[in-house]
Amino acid sequence: MFNKITIIGLGLIGSSIARAIKKNRLCKSLVAHDKSKIVLKKILKLKITNHTEPNLKKSVQDSDLVIICTPLGTYKNIVSVIKNYLKKTCILTDVGSAKIFVTNTVNKLINKNTIWIPAHPVAGTEQSGPEAGFADLFKNRWCIITPVSKKNPNALKKLNNFWKKIGSKVQHMSAEHHDKVMAITSHIPHLIAYNIVGTAANLEQDTKSEVIKYSASGFRDFTRIASSDPTMWRDIALNNRKQILHMLEKFNLDLSNLKRALIKRDGNKLFKLFSKTRKIRQAIVKAGQDINSPNFGRKN
Amino acid sequence: MFNKITIIGLGLIGSSIARAIKKNRLCKSLVAHDKSKIVLKKILKLKITNHTEPNLKKSVQDSDLVIICTPLGTYKNIVSVIKNYLKKTCILTDVGSAKIFVTNTVNKLINKNTIWIPAHPVAGTEQSGPEAGFADLFKNRWCIITPVSKKNPNALKKLNNFWKKIGSKVQHMSAEHHDKVMAITSHIPHLIAYNIVGTAANLEQDTKSEVIKYSASGFRDFTRIASSDPTMWRDIALNNRKQILHMLEKFNLDLSNLKRALIKRDGNKLFKLFSKTRKIRQAIVKAGQDINSPNFGRKN
Repeated sequence: MFNKITIIGLGLIGSSIARAIKKNRLCKSLVAHDKSKIVLKKILKLKITNHTEPNLKKSVQDSDLVIICTPLGTYKNIVSVIKNYLKKTCILTDVGSAKIFVTNTVNKLINKNTIWIPAHPVAGTEQSGPEAGFADLFKNRWCIITPVSKKNPNALKKLNNFWKKIGSKVQHMSAEHHDKVMAITSHIPHLIAYNIVGTAANLEQDTKSEVIKYSASGFRDFTRIASSDPTMWRDIALNNRKQILHMLEKFNLDLSNLKRALIKRDGNKLFKLFSKTRKIRQAIVKAGQDINSPNFGRKN
Repeated sequence: MFNKITIIGLGLIGSSIARAIKKNRLCKSLVAHDKSKIVLKKILKLKITNHTEPNLKKSVQDSDLVIICTPLGTYKNIVSVIKNYLKKTCILTDVGSAKIFVTNTVNKLINKNTIWIPAHPVAGTEQSGPEAGFADLFKNRWCIITPVSKKNPNALKKLNNFWKKIGSKVQHMSAEHHDKVMAITSHIPHLIAYNIVGTAANLEQDTKSEVIKYSASGFRDFTRIASSDPTMWRDIALNNRKQILHMLEKFNLDLSNLKRALIKRDGNKLFKLFSKTRKIRQAIVKAGQDINSPNFGRKN
């Protein structure tokens, strides 16, 4: 499909893409670059690829597809370094979670003729690092592509096919729309989970150990999300600020409403609030985005 | 262990206790009472017990242990009806999630010599109804007992042993302390999950269907908790109001703090907030309250 692919950043997502490329034989040569030599050593040890390149410039030379899989805060430096080393037909893409920021940042830096197509595979786990990745991470998950130009329909088609071969379903949309939808489906849930687990972490020591002891009553689900990579989430929060603050405003209004019902002992209102949410879960299970087993099928 | 046990309310918890009693042979006769005849029919069909009694008064007669497993809003009526039909040596207990309310309500109604020991098995799933129960629900989970009197050490011992035989670990604490700990480990997470899923449900139709489509990015975890039984949660919210509002205040303060960091683009502060929460999850996994598999071991 491609002759040479370069992956920059071999964490959970980058190493999962690398594994999926290898599994599905999507290129002849797969180059891994990471600023951490320890990560590159791990990649060789895990046999994810046998071609690692610690020099960023060299890693992208002659590549047909370059995928940036690093936190958003690193994009500016990375693109500044590689922009003159990409060959004319190379597709430059990424996996970042805040597309307006990504698009603007990269647009400003790249040369006029660079084929640049931002993308975001909507998949992941709370774990991070190259050991956490797996080839099937993207199977039956959506990959959102936010094309910036219509100039290169063939390149877009190639990137679509790449994600489909990895197991994803592909959807195109604008960066603006992407950021709005992700604010509510991903960014707000993460911030809220970090916040509530943070509130628990601030409690005095005695209560904190009891929070751990009795966490199975609901709290433990929030801790899964709140153990995601802090660097990645700092950068997402900073770079989708506008939409996050907008959705947080809606969330806060609803919470004030719920609080008012509680203060007024308005049982009917609470019942209504607690009833309408079941339908959303049923629709998610029906859409194949979650399983129906109680407690996500956990045995404990 | 007991000659006759009566369970009032055969939903997720009540039917799970009944199944566990049967599995562990903890009594000679097990009586199921539910105000719904449909539920009682299901209980017979599922062979959870073959002794159902639609008359509440009759159901508790000659019983050695009566367990109330209904929403908190029903306690007043139930106890008023049964209080004169409990035999002298009978232990009256419950499984409610708000112990100050439960203790006060029942204390006011029961006869002076009734042996009343409130309890709360910290276990459950998002599903409800008699079909959703299973015998191992309480295995390795905590059961919190909040004794109201020291007058009947033998009865307390008997109730302890009952929960231990069902697979639980038992902890005694005051109703006040219970309500404080549950506010943060269970009640606030449920309210927040209901609230955020509610915010999503309020979005215009287009965005709502995309929220479902891309829910795997974090949102779907919140929908599990937000599909719990609305009657049960209305009653918990109303009856642990004080502690819930107190903890909600802390949560709101922390959220304002997070929002301020976001507005000020304070990356360091965000990073610190997002870093301290990982330790809590590690401690929960270490305490055997959750599994370490990514995405709770879900395959999709």
